Amino acid sequence: MNTSRARIEIEYCTQCRWLLRAAWTAQELLTTFQDEVREVCLQPGTGGIFEVRVGEDIVWSRAQQKRFPEMKELKQLIRDRIAPERDLGHSDRDPLL
Amino acid sequence: MNTSRARIEIEYCTQCRWLLRAAWTAQELLTTFQDEVREVCLQPGTGGIFEVRVGEDIVWSRAQQKRFPEMKELKQLIRDRIAPERDLGHSDRDPLL
Repeated sequence: MNTSRARIEIEYCTQCRWLLRAAWTAQELLTTFQDEVREVCLQPGTGGIFEVRVGEDIVWSRAQQKRFPEMKELKQLIRDRIAPERDLGHSDRDPLL
Repeated sequence: MNTSRARIEIEYCTQCRWLLRAAWTAQELLTTFQDEVREVCLQPGTGGIFEVRVGEDIVWSRAQQKRFPEMKELKQLIRDRIAPERDLGHSDRDPLL
């Protein structure tokens, strides 16, 4: 297993039934960052948690940001950490341009 | 994070496009074993791999078993390791009885 690649964690609240959102997010990240990611880990939690971490760094916390991330912004935040040189195509374009 | 709970890995072949099957499997296991599992990790791989591991133990290998696991049998194999006393309800019943 290639340990130089990133480990991403998605901790989600089971009481709020956020497994489906967490699993959708995992599949999006595994599709976009297939070659940069070692694993995406889904972690059942409680108390309204929805947190995405790259290694030890929290890149999104619903508790702090008071909302779920847009997939586009989450991918940009993760790209900035694990593949800063990468262009995310549509995810990097302003849809109005 | 409760480290006494189990860590499950699902390594899947990206060339074969098995992400959707792997993510479906992860959601089933996270639903059935919500209280026994610390994390379910999806790991992109190649070369036709589809492997499910509990900790270091391989509980299913498509290369060895020459097929994908039925969800029912996979849950029984995992239950036998992480929650041997648990009854899986329908997953433990023979549908013909």
